[in-house]
This record gives sequence, structure tokens and C-alpha cells, in this order.
Amino acid sequence: MNTAQIAINGYGTIGKRIASAVELQPDMQVCGVAKTSPDYEANAARANGYPLYVASERSVEAFGEAGIDVAGTVEALIEACDVVVDATPSGVGKRYKARYDAADTPAIFQGGEAPEVAEQSFNARSNFEDCAGADSLRVVSCNTTGLTRFLSPLKEAYGIEKVRATLVRRGGDPSQSDRGPINDILPDPVSIPSHHGPDVQTVFPDLDIDTMGLKVPSTRMHVHTINVTLSEEPALRAITDQLSGESRLFVVPARLGTNGCGTLHEFAREMGRSRGDLYENCIWGESLALNGRDLYCYQAIHQESDVVPENIDAIRAITESASATESRALTDEALGIGILESVARMDRTETMLAD
Amino acid sequence: MNTAQIAINGYGTIGKRIASAVELQPDMQVCGVAKTSPDYEANAARANGYPLYVASERSVEAFGEAGIDVAGTVEALIEACDVVVDATPSGVGKRYKARYDAADTPAIFQGGEAPEVAEQSFNARSNFEDCAGADSLRVVSCNTTGLTRFLSPLKEAYGIEKVRATLVRRGGDPSQSDRGPINDILPDPVSIPSHHGPDVQTVFPDLDIDTMGLKVPSTRMHVHTINVTLSEEPALRAITDQLSGESRLFVVPARLGTNGCGTLHEFAREMGRSRGDLYENCIWGESLALNGRDLYCYQAIHQESDVVPENIDAIRAITESASATESRALTDEALGIGILESVARMDRTETMLAD
Repeated sequence: MNTAQIAINGYGTIGKRIASAVELQPDMQVCGVAKTSPDYEANAARANGYPLYVASERSVEAFGEAGIDVAGTVEALIEACDVVVDATPSGVGKRYKARYDAADTPAIFQGGEAPEVAEQSFNARSNFEDCAGADSLRVVSCNTTGLTRFLSPLKEAYGIEKVRATLVRRGGDPSQSDRGPINDILPDPVSIPSHHGPDVQTVFPDLDIDTMGLKVPSTRMHVHTINVTLSEEPALRAITDQLSGESRLFVVPARLGTNGCGTLHEFAREMGRSRGDLYENCIWGESLALNGRDLYCYQAIHQESDVVPENIDAIRAITESASATESRALTDEALGIGILESVARMDRTETMLAD
Repeated sequence: MNTAQIAINGYGTIGKRIASAVELQPDMQVCGVAKTSPDYEANAARANGYPLYVASERSVEAFGEAGIDVAGTVEALIEACDVVVDATPSGVGKRYKARYDAADTPAIFQGGEAPEVAEQSFNARSNFEDCAGADSLRVVSCNTTGLTRFLSPLKEAYGIEKVRATLVRRGGDPSQSDRGPINDILPDPVSIPSHHGPDVQTVFPDLDIDTMGLKVPSTRMHVHTINVTLSEEPALRAITDQLSGESRLFVVPARLGTNGCGTLHEFAREMGRSRGDLYENCIWGESLALNGRDLYCYQAIHQESDVVPENIDAIRAITESASATESRALTDEALGIGILESVARMDRTETMLAD
């Protein structure tokens, strides 16, 4: 197995997690990370042993003054790697695109960029095969990843007539102390639909979906209220089993007593998850409800980490080094996705024994 | 016009506002308020000149020690009044019911009580006439009031096939410093539907409605994301006009720049509203959107005050002293409901002139 050399451009919330995840895979490694300022994250990158590249010659000096060795500028990194994962802030990736193209380096962008930045928008569960061998991919945003993962198995099993979802979004990530709101609930955007529905359509072009978004004073996770009008009317038990069978959907058993995002994170930390991350959609099992063909549920989406396994799979899609099934299995194994689900499975096994 | 003597049992968030609102009406006055503890609210009640009654003889002593004169115990107040408005904490009203019945005093309960507490659940816009002359009424909760007000005109004008709503609820009122959550988003309850849909059905028994609820770290207002599948497909402009014509629906013009609940409250304070209250549903005009027969919008509901005008109307319904139209007009005039809407109307007049 060749070891693909992966460059990470941008070492913030997403970039640092992708770097850690790449290092855990058997078929790829980090050849360097690029960072613009010599802050605590740059120090952590060096401490973690990643060769550090910077935006410009001027940055080399700034890092030098801060006592951080750099391996070179980002241009050299883009030249040296097999794939570059762009994890720069929203809108910055677009400005780097020409440089990736000039170096003929396959590039993976994040969902903060407009869909046009890449050949194809990507979700590992939904359209991996369509994306194989592309020159560039865009891993859809955390919320869109959460929605497409949830909708994929339902679409395949029962067909979907319409989706209506409200996304109650965290105001900012834990490190973003310049964000809000404080003590408020903001429609964001005020106009309907929010951009999330159209973004889901970059993966499922024919899906009828209307989304609304709100911003609230929390930093932990987004919470979605979802209504899916199915084409058929299956039994709720069949739906629960269908969803529970998906590795990146964690159908949370009621007995865990996880009443919100804080308890979910606490569980992830207890289970030894790196940075307390929750790569899976967390769907409260108790909330799954069916009224005719109308399915409802609440799911929590960890905005800092749910796209991490998707980025790993996007690397294998772009390099055509594995099939969708192989790639997802490799990623899940390496990241320990399935550990939380194994707890839920215990629960279901007991239920089956009791049946 | 007879002046109805109104007793207010419970002088907290809702009770104190109803007392103020009663005093502003031409046809009723507060004959006394009852309070259990001699705290800052009791002091304010005395300062406002309301005869103060207490729960028991033991309380008389406690109030005396705190230097607050009391007029007697709650039994005397219940005997003396024409109507008692129960604004005690959720679940306490039920315990008082027998005492109101024994005194043969018509009683108005709040939405925190179970529907069975009263002969009929009440919303002034939706079912005033059905409630006229009842022995007891229950003013539905702030959220249910907000939903029924919004749905009434749509139901009458176009018919409603189905309603789906997410209620993003404030964790507690500004004075409830023992409430949460902090930095979290909680499904509440986790099971679907939430109680709000069935509560709306206490007013509209045949309505097909599914609701979901979340609790977030805010004290200001609830925010609803609403989807109404109408029976017809009217023009969006017709719907906006329909809703704008309702006195207790404030369709907020985009030009006010009220991006959330904080700015709505600030506007109410600038407009001289008592306690900064927002009696009206605040519907962001920009958010009204139609996709086929699917209508969407965001509305903010001020949990501390939107039921206040409804309680005033419930008093007139129970005493059969005015028709629905007369009562709502009297209440609106006395509380200055229409002041905010007049700002929006300016906007629409300009739009019409420009058409």
C-alpha cells in the first residue's frame, strides 16, 4: 500500500483534526501543515511533530521570532504533497484554488467555500463513487454532512417525498470568543430557506428540502429538528434498525440519559475520544417518531468534528485508492467510530433477547 | 358600564402584568392581589397601591414582620371579587380550583394547568364566542397562544392541511436565576410530539399539528419556526396582508433591523411599552416564504406578556360583558397594542404608494 502524502493548509478547528485523523490511517500521512500565525495552535502543531509551513517569506520571520522552526512556505508544501486538504477559513480556500491547480495537486475544500470551488460536493455515505478520481472535491459543511448522512439510508430504503428541517446552530466554536449571541435566539438568516437546503441539493440534486436556521448562545453542537415525509410508510422499528445500522449515525439509547449536547460530549470524553469529538450524528432514539409517513427526530451535530472522517474518505475518493465501502470501513476503524454505537448495540441486543 | 372587581391570585411574572393591564381597562379594576411571600414583588404590589392578601394566617405574620400591611387572607379576596384570575405557579391553580368553586367565583386559569382544570381552553382570537359565560376558562400557554393566534386567520382564509412547528424556548424568565441550560441546546421533551401540539388542539380540536421543543440559554423570548401546509395556494402578498391585518400579530418590517429578540425588546422599550413587554407575536416579515402550499416563517413570542391581553379578554368572555370584537378592541386600545403595528403600517403604506 502506498502511503499518500497529505498536506493540510490551515491548522484551525478542522485542519488540526484532519491532521490527527490522517496520522491514524494505514495508507496516508501528514507531510506538512500550513499556518499563518505563530499562535498556540502553531506551537501545538510543532509539538505534535508536523513539519510546519507558512503563508509567505514574511511569516517565516514572524515564526522565527516566536521561536518556531518552519520547513518553508505553503507553495513548497503544495508542490511536495499528493493531496492538499484546504482547511483555511471560509472563503480563503477559493483564493488558494489557482495555486493548487498550478501545482497540479488534487485539492479537497471545506463546506465554507461555495460549491463552485470544486468539481463535486462530497459526502462519503451519499456520493463517494460519483466523486472518485475528481481533481477537486468539496466536503459539505458540518450541517449538510449531518443531513445527507441521515437522509441517505432513508432515501435508499423508502424514498423521500419532502424534508423540512430547523437547524438550531451553536453561535461559535469553543475557541471563538468573538462570537455571539449572548442571551438571544437569532433567525440566521432571517430569509427562508436557509442555505442548508440548497447545499444538501449539491449532493442530492432532486431532493425536495426546505431548511430554516437559528443561532443560539451555545458553543457545543448544532441540534437539528427534522421532519422527513417518506414515500412509503414503514414501521418505526424498521426505520430505527435501518438508522442504527449506519456506522456514522449514533442512535442514542434513552438509558444513557444524555439530555443534551453537554452530556453527549461528556460521554465522548469518557469513551476516550480525541478532543472529546463526536464524529457521528447523535440521534436521540427516544425522539424518533412516526405520524403516518411523517418521520421526526432530533439530532445533534458536532460542528468541529463530523466532517473529519468525510475528509479522510474524500482523500481516498480523489486518489481512487479504495472503494466507498473499503474507505469508510478503514476510516471508521482508525478513528474508533463504532465505539459509541457498540454501547447502543448492547442495548439493542438485550431488547432482541427480550423480544 | 359596571366595573368588574378582579382578584389576582399570584403576583409573579404573569400576575403582576395582568394587574397592571386590568387597571388600564375602562370596565374593570383590581380589588386585590394575593401573594405568598413578602419579597420584592410584594413590596412592589403595595407600592402600586393594590390591596394585598396572603395565603394563610401564618403569612399575615410574616408580612407583618416584613413591614407590609395585608388586607386579609386569599379566601376573603375570592369571596369579595367578581372574577378571580389564577396566576399561581404551574400546578398550584388546580389546588385552588375547589376554593373558587366553593365561593361560586368564576375563575380564569393559566396554561401551566392541565386543560381539565377549566370548562374550556381559551384564545381571544380563536374561540372567544365558544367560551362566553363559562364558569371557568384556561388561557392557553404563551407558546400555544402564539400558535393559535398565528393559525386562526390562515385557517379561516385558506384552510390548513397540516402544521409542523419547532419551538426554540428560552430556558427561563429573567428573574429565574435557578434555571438553565448554560451553553447547551436541549430537546425538551426528547420524545416527539411535544405537548404544544395537543395543547393547540384544545382550541382547534381537528387541527393536524406536530410540534417539537428545544430549550436554549436565553431568557428573552421563545422563537418558533413554523411550517403550515395550507389547503389552498394563495399569493404570498395576500398572506402577508392577511397576517398584518391582525392586531396581535406584528409583522416586523425588515427596515427596523430587528435581528433577534434583544432588538425587538429594545424597540418595545423605546416605544414606551410597560416593562418592555411585547404582547404581539413578532413575525419577521422577511421570513414569510411560500413553497407551493407550504408557508414558512419565524416568530418570536414574549413568554412574560403575550397572554396578558388574552386574560383581559377572558374576563369579558366569562362575564359576558362584551363580544369578541368589542373586547379585543377595548383591550388593544387600553394596552397600546397597535403602536408597534402602526410603525409597520407606515412601511406598508409607502409600499402601496410605490406600487
